[in-house]
Amino acid sequence: MGRWEPDARQRLEQAALELFAEQGFAATTVPEITARAGLTTRTFFRHFADKREVLFAEDQAAEAAERLLTTAPPDAAPLTLILDGLRAVATERFEPKREHLRALRAIIRTDDGLRERELHKHAALREAVRTGLLARGLPSTTAALLAEICTTLLFVSVDEWLDRDDDRPLADIIGDTLTALRAVLKI
Amino acid sequence: MGRWEPDARQRLEQAALELFAEQGFAATTVPEITARAGLTTRTFFRHFADKREVLFAEDQAAEAAERLLTTAPPDAAPLTLILDGLRAVATERFEPKREHLRALRAIIRTDDGLRERELHKHAALREAVRTGLLARGLPSTTAALLAEICTTLLFVSVDEWLDRDDDRPLADIIGDTLTALRAVLKI
Repeated sequence: MGRWEPDARQRLEQAALELFAEQGFAATTVPEITARAGLTTRTFFRHFADKREVLFAEDQAAEAAERLLTTAPPDAAPLTLILDGLRAVATERFEPKREHLRALRAIIRTDDGLRERELHKHAALREAVRTGLLARGLPSTTAALLAEICTTLLFVSVDEWLDRDDDRPLADIIGDTLTALRAVLKI
Repeated sequence: MGRWEPDARQRLEQAALELFAEQGFAATTVPEITARAGLTTRTFFRHFADKREVLFAEDQAAEAAERLLTTAPPDAAPLTLILDGLRAVATERFEPKREHLRALRAIIRTDDGLRERELHKHAALREAVRTGLLARGLPSTTAALLAEICTTLLFVSVDEWLDRDDDRPLADIIGDTLTALRAVLKI
């Protein structure tokens, strides 16, 4: 990987996001992205399988969830594990990239193929959480419901956070969303 | 539409399900399906866009949800509306087709493209519920959460119902799933 271009990956991401926003995802080619970034297409393909993956390659939520559920103490309460995991991800991975994630969301919304890829990403996280909870000995319906709760809390909260124009941290909004979820279910 | 083959659609569905189960989804061609059903490929394409749509064309959950949310009294409680709608769909549309739905699920699980199509179906229902609730004046986060609850209750319950070997009705299992959802959210 690019010992001569230490920031190649980030430059390619930046160039791709700019071009997708300016001229649309479908109309943008890999050579245009590399020209904007001042890099070669060969460098591009060392980092990404195709232009779509520039938007998704950073995502490792499913792997992180699997790791967390495998290494957590066996007696930890599952919902607490999920909330702690979500809050950590929110603070470490989402919070510093709010503008980037806003641009990403805007582009994904313009293209059916990107929306499908996004659904796939959500499903992969849900499935990782479900499988991780099954491995911890939870009954199948409980594991499935907690996995749904995890993705619901994350993605509804991220949308709300990206919509807002104040500085309420995503980790706090996740707590708000849980409160709202309990309220609509009248608990 | 097939005035000479009044049950063409059903025969094609049956033939397709059999062949997908016997030899796999990817390996099955439209001419094989029509040969098994004793019909022409021309008839096939009057009913379905492609072999994948044989498995999904029946699904009108998103349209049904939209209709329900548009026509319900404005003061109806949203969660009650959703539960009543789910129970009606369960009894009228799912309950009579349990074996068919089991076969369908088994086939969908074998193929990545079919699983993606299934995710798309879930997303379409979720989006229809969310939009319908927004049109009823609900705040955006509440609408998003209720839409997630709706699809979670339906699809987790359907999976549980298809896994079971007793005769507990799907409508009752949906109630059980709601009880379980409330229980896992109490920390």
